[in-house]
Amino acid sequence: MHEINLTMMTDFYQLTMMQGYFASGEHKKKSVFDMFFRKSPEQSAYAISCGLDLLIKYVESIRFSEDDIGFLENEGSFTPEFLDYLRGFRFSGDIHAVPEGTVVFPHEPILRVTAPIIEAQFLETALLNIMNHQTLIATKAARICFAAEGDPVLEFGLRRAQGPDAGILGARAAIIGGCAATSNVLAGKMFGVPVRGTHAHSWIMSFDDELTAFREYARLYPSACILLVDTYNTLKSGVPNAIKVFEEMRDSGRLTGAYGIRLDSGDLAYLSKSARVMLDEAGFGKAIISASSDLDEGLIKDLKHQGAKITLWGVGTNLITSKDCPSLGGVYKISAKEGSGGEMVPKIKLSENPEKITNPGMKTMFRIYDKESGKMKADVIALEGETIDATKDLMLFHPIATWKKMELAAGTFTVRELLVPVFAGGKCVYTSPSVMEIKSYCRKELDTLWEEHKRLLRPHLMPVDLSEKLFELKTRLISEMRGI
Amino acid sequence: MHEINLTMMTDFYQLTMMQGYFASGEHKKKSVFDMFFRKSPEQSAYAISCGLDLLIKYVESIRFSEDDIGFLENEGSFTPEFLDYLRGFRFSGDIHAVPEGTVVFPHEPILRVTAPIIEAQFLETALLNIMNHQTLIATKAARICFAAEGDPVLEFGLRRAQGPDAGILGARAAIIGGCAATSNVLAGKMFGVPVRGTHAHSWIMSFDDELTAFREYARLYPSACILLVDTYNTLKSGVPNAIKVFEEMRDSGRLTGAYGIRLDSGDLAYLSKSARVMLDEAGFGKAIISASSDLDEGLIKDLKHQGAKITLWGVGTNLITSKDCPSLGGVYKISAKEGSGGEMVPKIKLSENPEKITNPGMKTMFRIYDKESGKMKADVIALEGETIDATKDLMLFHPIATWKKMELAAGTFTVRELLVPVFAGGKCVYTSPSVMEIKSYCRKELDTLWEEHKRLLRPHLMPVDLSEKLFELKTRLISEMRGI
Repeated sequence: MHEINLTMMTDFYQLTMMQGYFASGEHKKKSVFDMFFRKSPEQSAYAISCGLDLLIKYVESIRFSEDDIGFLENEGSFTPEFLDYLRGFRFSGDIHAVPEGTVVFPHEPILRVTAPIIEAQFLETALLNIMNHQTLIATKAARICFAAEGDPVLEFGLRRAQGPDAGILGARAAIIGGCAATSNVLAGKMFGVPVRGTHAHSWIMSFDDELTAFREYARLYPSACILLVDTYNTLKSGVPNAIKVFEEMRDSGRLTGAYGIRLDSGDLAYLSKSARVMLDEAGFGKAIISASSDLDEGLIKDLKHQGAKITLWGVGTNLITSKDCPSLGGVYKISAKEGSGGEMVPKIKLSENPEKITNPGMKTMFRIYDKESGKMKADVIALEGETIDATKDLMLFHPIATWKKMELAAGTFTVRELLVPVFAGGKCVYTSPSVMEIKSYCRKELDTLWEEHKRLLRPHLMPVDLSEKLFELKTRLISEMRGI
Repeated sequence: MHEINLTMMTDFYQLTMMQGYFASGEHKKKSVFDMFFRKSPEQSAYAISCGLDLLIKYVESIRFSEDDIGFLENEGSFTPEFLDYLRGFRFSGDIHAVPEGTVVFPHEPILRVTAPIIEAQFLETALLNIMNHQTLIATKAARICFAAEGDPVLEFGLRRAQGPDAGILGARAAIIGGCAATSNVLAGKMFGVPVRGTHAHSWIMSFDDELTAFREYARLYPSACILLVDTYNTLKSGVPNAIKVFEEMRDSGRLTGAYGIRLDSGDLAYLSKSARVMLDEAGFGKAIISASSDLDEGLIKDLKHQGAKITLWGVGTNLITSKDCPSLGGVYKISAKEGSGGEMVPKIKLSENPEKITNPGMKTMFRIYDKESGKMKADVIALEGETIDATKDLMLFHPIATWKKMELAAGTFTVRELLVPVFAGGKCVYTSPSVMEIKSYCRKELDTLWEEHKRLLRPHLMPVDLSEKLFELKTRLISEMRGI
């Protein structure tokens, strides 16, 4: 594969607008943009923020090559002055973001860009592409792992992913969201994450009979011997042959590693329960029963509910494409712009739908935890520079239904600011943790939510409130705009 | 971005199985694998084959680096002999495929690999990843363009695509499937396809008022002046301001290129009809009315049915993710393997579900056209070496419901063989046409289908029959297998 610089991976209108800002001389005006989403994927209350590592690499690599300039020149819409400006175009601003693996909620600024408007505008398309995709898959993985109730879940979706990146970056996001391993060897190598896999039906079919195929596999891979038992007849042929091989391994002292079976078709509840009885009766109580076959969080929950004896779940298409909801609608909106006197002027976008009105100004975000349980109570979006004092009582209220209030007594809660500096003056000031560290952080993040917030269907929603100052600013701007 | 070689983009079990073949000395045995899908995306009768160009690049670039070997060595499952074998691993076989942009149907071998089994097995994961994704998006684009009834459709989905590749390769597939242009500048540059875009709400909001924003845009881009009219109030502010700017352009002789408006919210049927009247009354009958906002083929069809006056459609998320059906279930199955005497032995995979039984043997595919209308009559899957003689009567029959027969009289039909050589002895022998050439070929392909096959819901299905020889082989193998 050839090296691809992603600078040109943008919507054409970003370039036409940039030329507009450039032509008017407005392009150097400082601006603030927020990335947020209005709705979590599917019915989830939360999402898992993911994608920052690639975003950093993207921002650092921004540069238009002479080849790119030549292409834009031929396109015909751009002036020589603007193209010349693009030759030296770099990102010179600041970026703040929540760390990857953070639990986030609708309407929160999970990423904030402060930069000359021409640069901030330029980032939009690639930033949304990267963050929307990986956040979507990490969230799906968290939902699936929640349904699996602690059983390991393996990511197996590469062959059905939407192209190479979706397979590779999707595997990374899946691990962060909670998967124990991936089948994707390249993702394993690139990100230092566990890789797993055994064999396909084609392995069984390439031998004259199933027992020989199993024996040969056990000979080659005695320490991770998971046998696929559904090629001919799961309960009449596959499981009995697997038991025969496990007996031979036990008799010869080779049954020392992980071993078990994989079910890939048929009714997984019935087959896993029957196989469990057969394996237990033969003395193989430790045999793993893994299953794959169009699984998702809903089916896993149902199989669990029906007493399926599956201990390891392989999930492919439905995870890697987030099949029920294959896109996250993250947006990137301006919230402040430098005025004529150099002051920052907060910006708001109105809508007939209150949910679609943006939050103005340069903002930060605080997470409030219950001191005793360590569980999350709420998030508060505030103006940059505001603080929340945990030694004083705190009053929170719903940003739209303002009569919904929650009062927290001083000393009963703790506060954490969520946005961390990632770029300062165009330089990256953040070091991404390893993927396995992010995975472990994400697990702790999810532990701060009550089960009620993690329910797959109609979960309890987390309050995301506004500070009084931000609420007043927003109310004032709405009145002013409506007054015009 | 860094260069990424995709050799390691495979499922781990491909490598464990390859080591198995290697250990048994079976790895050099010649084998034949087919790629096919069992069901078109959504309710479509057909799919548009896409992805061959990237697949060729992938196959040509297969090589395990010392870094890759080191990673696999550390993993612990592989013998030094096998790893040493991988050092020199290249694809040495043959590949036949239908050209990109070809209309294809369920169960057809759209790609055939003939190679030593260890090589053919290795290709599976990356091949399916590439072909499944691009075929999915090209098919979705064809459905959307069918609904648009000849109006141009623009691909706008980059920000919601599942990662960079999905945005870039998805744009390519969308153009092949029928889109007139993409917003993705990088795709435009990489594939030589038209790029389009105007401005976003943020452009309008960065000016003190809408009229000034429109005027400035018109000044900069007089030859492609599409104004976004829904930032404040579409019919009371946006359209009247746009008309004012078009009048100014007309009066000063600058209204010489394409011009019009874009609707991005509200009810697109009502707004487009009202805007059409306003534009026509002001003498702008040629003004384009473009629309975007969560469009897909179903909504476009409904808007058309309600008399919407939209002449240009921008489609984002629902196209680039194929939202209603975000994966194509293409599979890759062995159909023949070299026997102990060097002869090729046909292979079949049985299933309780007749639809899932594979077609054995090394196969080719013929397309039968009605001579008079030029429309497709049926496809016939046959054994390699078979021919269909158009000067003789031809009897076709359904491969499962064999009583369903169709007799074609000699001279009333024409025949075309669909698979073309792509690799021969490991060397690429095929030159991909340009994307715009593939797009034009695809359009001709779609023209060979009756409208009934292209209907969005419950279309008429195309017969995909088996030659008598293939049918007999399949029947014999099923009997033999059942007999065991």
